[in-house]
Amino acid sequence: MAKPKKTPRPKAETPKGFRDYFGAEVTQRTEMLRTIAGVYHRYGFEALESSAVETVEALGKFLPDVDRPNEGVFAWQESEDDGAGDWMALRYDLTAPLARVYAQHRNDLPTPYRRYAMGPVWRNEKPGPGRYRQFYQCDADTVGSASMAADAEICAMLSDTLETVGIPRGDYVVRVNNRKVLNGVLEILGGPFQIEDEDDRIMSAVWDKHMEDAILRTADKFDKVGEAGVRELLTTGRKDASGAFIEGVGLTAQQSDLVVRFLTSKGADNAETLANLRDAICGSNIGLQGIDELEEIVDLLAAVGYGPDRIVIDPSVVRGLGYYTGPVFEAELTFEIFDEKGRKRQFGSVAGGGRYDDLVARFTGQTVPSVGVSIGVDRLLAALREKGRIQAVEHGPVVVTVMDRDRMADYQAMVAELRNAGIRAEVYLGNPKNFGNQLKYADKRNSPIAVIQGGDEKAKDVVQIKDLILGAQIAANATLEEWKERPSQYEVARSDLVAKVREILAEQAG
Amino acid sequence: MAKPKKTPRPKAETPKGFRDYFGAEVTQRTEMLRTIAGVYHRYGFEALESSAVETVEALGKFLPDVDRPNEGVFAWQESEDDGAGDWMALRYDLTAPLARVYAQHRNDLPTPYRRYAMGPVWRNEKPGPGRYRQFYQCDADTVGSASMAADAEICAMLSDTLETVGIPRGDYVVRVNNRKVLNGVLEILGGPFQIEDEDDRIMSAVWDKHMEDAILRTADKFDKVGEAGVRELLTTGRKDASGAFIEGVGLTAQQSDLVVRFLTSKGADNAETLANLRDAICGSNIGLQGIDELEEIVDLLAAVGYGPDRIVIDPSVVRGLGYYTGPVFEAELTFEIFDEKGRKRQFGSVAGGGRYDDLVARFTGQTVPSVGVSIGVDRLLAALREKGRIQAVEHGPVVVTVMDRDRMADYQAMVAELRNAGIRAEVYLGNPKNFGNQLKYADKRNSPIAVIQGGDEKAKDVVQIKDLILGAQIAANATLEEWKERPSQYEVARSDLVAKVREILAEQAG
Repeated sequence: MAKPKKTPRPKAETPKGFRDYFGAEVTQRTEMLRTIAGVYHRYGFEALESSAVETVEALGKFLPDVDRPNEGVFAWQESEDDGAGDWMALRYDLTAPLARVYAQHRNDLPTPYRRYAMGPVWRNEKPGPGRYRQFYQCDADTVGSASMAADAEICAMLSDTLETVGIPRGDYVVRVNNRKVLNGVLEILGGPFQIEDEDDRIMSAVWDKHMEDAILRTADKFDKVGEAGVRELLTTGRKDASGAFIEGVGLTAQQSDLVVRFLTSKGADNAETLANLRDAICGSNIGLQGIDELEEIVDLLAAVGYGPDRIVIDPSVVRGLGYYTGPVFEAELTFEIFDEKGRKRQFGSVAGGGRYDDLVARFTGQTVPSVGVSIGVDRLLAALREKGRIQAVEHGPVVVTVMDRDRMADYQAMVAELRNAGIRAEVYLGNPKNFGNQLKYADKRNSPIAVIQGGDEKAKDVVQIKDLILGAQIAANATLEEWKERPSQYEVARSDLVAKVREILAEQAG
Repeated sequence: MAKPKKTPRPKAETPKGFRDYFGAEVTQRTEMLRTIAGVYHRYGFEALESSAVETVEALGKFLPDVDRPNEGVFAWQESEDDGAGDWMALRYDLTAPLARVYAQHRNDLPTPYRRYAMGPVWRNEKPGPGRYRQFYQCDADTVGSASMAADAEICAMLSDTLETVGIPRGDYVVRVNNRKVLNGVLEILGGPFQIEDEDDRIMSAVWDKHMEDAILRTADKFDKVGEAGVRELLTTGRKDASGAFIEGVGLTAQQSDLVVRFLTSKGADNAETLANLRDAICGSNIGLQGIDELEEIVDLLAAVGYGPDRIVIDPSVVRGLGYYTGPVFEAELTFEIFDEKGRKRQFGSVAGGGRYDDLVARFTGQTVPSVGVSIGVDRLLAALREKGRIQAVEHGPVVVTVMDRDRMADYQAMVAELRNAGIRAEVYLGNPKNFGNQLKYADKRNSPIAVIQGGDEKAKDVVQIKDLILGAQIAANATLEEWKERPSQYEVARSDLVAKVREILAEQAG
């Protein structure tokens, strides 16, 4: 055969903004998803898995990061021979697809429809440190219930979930707010936005929506830039840490006062916060409705034992996504960690959600009141690793080394016996010529035990069993005396292989 | 606020070729993935999860379906402001990404690198019945081992996996072939493809590759079109069932005989098959090497008890993917099912794999011998459902109904007690006005039990507990006498709620 034409070699690189996950990173996430699914299931939610791909029009445009092409999603156009040449995209969350699924299957689904979903979502964001374009979400939603009991239940379930995966009470808080209260504040500000124009109704509508979105996005930065920063951003603008100037929203100082007063309404307890909020909304109807809803939620939660040690009203919670219409909430881990620059800071948000009454109506024209939560599983795993609650490294398999390549069947019989006894084991499948490479391999795999049978051992019908963990400890710490007294290698009859390996593994497990 | 401009409503439709999975469909797949991961892990494989997105150049072009745009993948171009404007695509399998990962991280990974991976893959194929553009694969691969022990082990593990998920021995067979033997046959055919041309070396190379691919694709259809069909397709062409004419590859009758003789070399046992293959390859070196490898694999397998009742040499196995270089294998379920048209047929292939020694070399220039298997989890689930080995329907949660909406906290306390006892339960969160709707909801959820507490019951501090499964049985079958004797509704003290629910659930479980 003639050689094919030479083409340049492709680069072996994870695409920008993506990453690979190895070993324990994967299995620990799988285990966490399983644990969370268990809690969701116990609460009565049903599993749903929709496709990763949706039409762009079904997903809608709700992402806060509007400066990116395709509004922050990965999108492509179907070829014409499939019919429409529709624009398709990877889902950016699990909520927009749920609205599509419910609208499509609503005649077959129970109402309320309570479902959970877990899987990767994709965002076409500028990659940054620790910020990936593919990450896992783990959602639960109740579609078709207007009852604040649904919102309260989601908050309680979020709290249960965090404790079940290993965040103890006191290390987290679920903070609850209501978009309606913020809308009440915007209502007060509303008047001055009218722009005089020949076609002023349309202009003012566009302007209002734009202004509202800008205020929302700015309010969402309260945690990061603080009260003074938000005030600057709402009015004339602000220089950020890098010296770049961020343009202001254009409110007057008086208007920005109203927004900041709302954001800083948190009092010593929920009752005081509610009173402050009542002041902040200056009698707006929608604002009052929002405050009543918040009160109902915390009362329902208190009645079943979820007090302010776990769930509090906090007006500074905004949530970036554009589809929320009522209560919004966020779970924050309150313990401190050290950031990249060695500064102490709180770990921050690991989950969030809220009520979105209009998302299904996009498809059907009929309002379907809904509420849900999304847990950022990767951040939650990072938090548990940070606190040392899960180990980053796991033991590898028992490695049966190959002393004589013609006796591969013998070695395979050994691993088969070990596996049948439920012990993780493998035969060395690399080039067996250099025995040192085999032990290096076992070391790299973090193997607990190596099994050795050369010609001499075969003749005597024995095997050598090397305790690699003890061997490493002795090599690192032991005196010569200890080293002599505690051998880390044992010669046993071939028929005792499984029993001895099991014994050593039990000792290692402590 | 003024109304936003009206835009047409998006369609609530699963994108063409995709589907949604509900409830047990999701949880059973998750459970199967977990079971398979358990087997892979016991064999010493490590988990890997790479991103769903890769550069098009990293994925390479190995899909058999060359008639689609972008060679059968979903692809899009990065925007220029991210630098290169690279073409990105969704992975079409888990092997091409593995080659990229190994090439990228080879200095940190052990060699051999044994990894498993599970997750969705995407193919931009023409949608058809039962053929979806997103489906799950569940792979295990040994990268960096040239030993046939690696291939043998993968076949043994595939066999173990099928039995572990519930396919009994006898209901499946792992069929093994070797691309090298087919290449031996192609070598004999090779001469006549030379095209006379001014620049004949390049022309013949292009022609050969094209011809080889065409023969490979045709051979892969042996299962579907049979010996006569393959003979037609290899020579002058063939009319398919719909009357459409498929062009032939253009071999002479004599040449096609050689290919067909190879494909039909299967004898009464492996020894006879190997002898037939030796005849079929007419002394070709590469062919002989392939036959020796097949012999080594079946010998190694026989030595650890995997005989021809589970694993056989079958020269008709080809595998469509372009990257295989040595042994290839396929797991087939051998029991019969009825197809859409009511005809009996074998269930067919649920897994496949093989050796691909050049996939890493695409990136590094150095050959890294590798072998792996991919299980089609969705087909395997379909097979188990077909055989009635897994149930398609699961029980829903206990539903606590709402008789008095002002006592929501009471009802929530009931579900909290049930959940804390490990019982799946929920309070009805729809509009409680119509009680019939609540029972209809419980019915749609397939709930085992409904709990009822109206004002009277509250006053007496009792609850009504309705056994919905028994109720349905009685309604369907019982005489009036039986109906009186076996009530399906019980009044118990409020404090006995959990105990009574537990008792009924235990009875229902039988």
